[in-house]
Amino acid sequence: MTAMTREACVALDASDPLAAHRDEFVLPDGVIYLDGNSLGALPVRTAEHLQRVVTQEWGQGLIRSWNDAGWFEAPRTLGDRVGRLVGAGPGQVVVCDSTSVNMFKALTAALSLRPGRTAVVGDRDNFPTDLYIMQGASGSTHEHRLIAADGPTLADVLDEDVAAVVLTHVDYRTGRMYDMAAVTAQVHAAGALMIWDLCHSVGALPVDLDGCGADFAVGCTYKYVNGGPGSPAFIYVASEHQDAATQPLSGWHGHADPFAFTPDYEPAPGISRFLVGTPHLLSCAGLEASLEIWDRVDLGAVRTKSLALTDLFISLVEARVGEHVSVVTPREHAVRGSQVSLRHEDGYAPMQALIERGVIGDFRAPDLMRFGFTPLYVGYADVWDAVDVLAEVLTTEVWREPRYATRNAVT
Amino acid sequence: MTAMTREACVALDASDPLAAHRDEFVLPDGVIYLDGNSLGALPVRTAEHLQRVVTQEWGQGLIRSWNDAGWFEAPRTLGDRVGRLVGAGPGQVVVCDSTSVNMFKALTAALSLRPGRTAVVGDRDNFPTDLYIMQGASGSTHEHRLIAADGPTLADVLDEDVAAVVLTHVDYRTGRMYDMAAVTAQVHAAGALMIWDLCHSVGALPVDLDGCGADFAVGCTYKYVNGGPGSPAFIYVASEHQDAATQPLSGWHGHADPFAFTPDYEPAPGISRFLVGTPHLLSCAGLEASLEIWDRVDLGAVRTKSLALTDLFISLVEARVGEHVSVVTPREHAVRGSQVSLRHEDGYAPMQALIERGVIGDFRAPDLMRFGFTPLYVGYADVWDAVDVLAEVLTTEVWREPRYATRNAVT
Repeated sequence: MTAMTREACVALDASDPLAAHRDEFVLPDGVIYLDGNSLGALPVRTAEHLQRVVTQEWGQGLIRSWNDAGWFEAPRTLGDRVGRLVGAGPGQVVVCDSTSVNMFKALTAALSLRPGRTAVVGDRDNFPTDLYIMQGASGSTHEHRLIAADGPTLADVLDEDVAAVVLTHVDYRTGRMYDMAAVTAQVHAAGALMIWDLCHSVGALPVDLDGCGADFAVGCTYKYVNGGPGSPAFIYVASEHQDAATQPLSGWHGHADPFAFTPDYEPAPGISRFLVGTPHLLSCAGLEASLEIWDRVDLGAVRTKSLALTDLFISLVEARVGEHVSVVTPREHAVRGSQVSLRHEDGYAPMQALIERGVIGDFRAPDLMRFGFTPLYVGYADVWDAVDVLAEVLTTEVWREPRYATRNAVT
Repeated sequence: MTAMTREACVALDASDPLAAHRDEFVLPDGVIYLDGNSLGALPVRTAEHLQRVVTQEWGQGLIRSWNDAGWFEAPRTLGDRVGRLVGAGPGQVVVCDSTSVNMFKALTAALSLRPGRTAVVGDRDNFPTDLYIMQGASGSTHEHRLIAADGPTLADVLDEDVAAVVLTHVDYRTGRMYDMAAVTAQVHAAGALMIWDLCHSVGALPVDLDGCGADFAVGCTYKYVNGGPGSPAFIYVASEHQDAATQPLSGWHGHADPFAFTPDYEPAPGISRFLVGTPHLLSCAGLEASLEIWDRVDLGAVRTKSLALTDLFISLVEARVGEHVSVVTPREHAVRGSQVSLRHEDGYAPMQALIERGVIGDFRAPDLMRFGFTPLYVGYADVWDAVDVLAEVLTTEVWREPRYATRNAVT
């Protein structure tokens, strides 16, 4: 890899089986977009699709579109399509609400299935909202045990008191990935239920929820899935749990017969009881447009290219700016997601300097520069060019100019 | 009113101070739309606004739009604009999630402020999701006392055990409206907190939450506000309660410093602690477009026209089809919302026959034909013409044709 040239990268792009997808996305001129792990790029087809939903389904169909345009079923029909991306058979995923709200449902539902158990396990490095929702949903009723990279381990904290384990599958900071099958089996061996946060997994790599026997999962669709800013999240509940689990967000769209308008809540059978309120249809429409692409994508090819892109980035970074940054993302493929994070004494300012030069990644406190690699629209030459700019920013130390230190609300 | 003619209706439209707004909405040819109380019509400007958000803010701005396009602040900036419609001063409303999810937050927050009290009060005729969320949020911890039109009354059930009262301000079936100021004062006199569901009020008539001393309110923006199918809901929390109230949907957007990514939840000061996950930006954009209209609308004029339209509809219905239907909506202005509901032995089939003839209302089980009057885009001649069609459907009994009995998923 260290002998790589830009010409070789161009050749790799030319023979890339996913290369044709790049034209399905809008990418601004002069931008190399390595932040699709935070907000995915706009599919070309989305603008037209949204116009049709707005002008035809809403404008002309009006209230009739709840039946005629499939709005009422959208959480389930979109859910099944997202399900294919995470290894979930039909009827186990609905698209709705935010990841945080869905985590609340998943955790309270898991606790309803393990009424005698008094503890919940998380990872100190979970995406924070997973920890925050644990605190809100079970902080006053359950003991919280946190594992961490430097200990304690899962084996240390699992016992017959643990009701559920909440883990972020791919670490949003480091890109480290859990072994879903092994961890789920370990959790089940202790009699607990497993809840996966797939925000940094879905659309980035193959996931096999059914095959791993996962109990619950949640995730967003605005990162690798390209559903648009704040597109609705999803929740997976394994079939075996659906009719036994209850959760307190008992809104009318989760009712067995929502349009009977009866005064007493009766949860719908199956996955529908994890719906709450009226679906956000315009945001659903953004997701619907992007799923039309995903319906045609082989996730195995995505994973192959993702690993090649991140391998390339790591090797170029180490060869060219190894004295300025350290790679915190694991080299081992089996435990790597689709991002690479670099530790730098002051990651914020260099990232601002990169963004000004058209290489968009992001920063995560206290010292990580984060680069996401989205195989549908990022190519090998992009990686080469991004490292070129990174080398310029780091070796010239231009990032020390004061203007790069100005903080934004969202970093 | 009974001497009204179609010509007189046309004249009223010509002198209507709100008439100019009609051209700001897309209305399908041949349709008289009397279901804006279920899904508001499409503003003309919305399609273009959404295109700009999609192609410019998302497509070109990408992740940078969280700062540069105001996405991060959208729940608060849109909240303040919705706040003007419901009499809420700045900093007391955020736009987010669904009405059901927001009711869950409001109720759990109210209970956090009244820890010693063991009962919650609702109305049997509340919109069902309000009752369902009461059951999910407090069904296992609090006694539930339901008032009803035929008793018991609020006075019967209020005592020092009641923590909170949840009422739908305008009844979705009958259009009956509570006296917000009087009821809120009555609830406060018992030491309880008042939570209003404003789904059928916001954009239909002036509401004065601050003036009435309301504690919490929730509502949707896809009915009279015209934000689009499933546009985000809102939650109002009176300033005095914000820093003391807690709610268990403790997601990262409600954190005091969401991008610090600390492991422990610390609720933001003020209204922001009622946010949970990433805002649904495309759905927010639909609302943003419609609020540009509302920013220019006098709600007093809306109320005046709403009462005139519903008065006219009631008088024409009674004069022409009084033997076929009974008006269940109150005649008294002070207790009437912006809809009229007619009871009919088989309301479903006649409504399907009306819809087939271009007069779109809806049906609510078991026997109500519901007609919403949205002063921004419904005129007096529309009312006349709608009653013409209603008279044809009811007097010819064409609705008895079997095809009108076929039920849809959403009725």
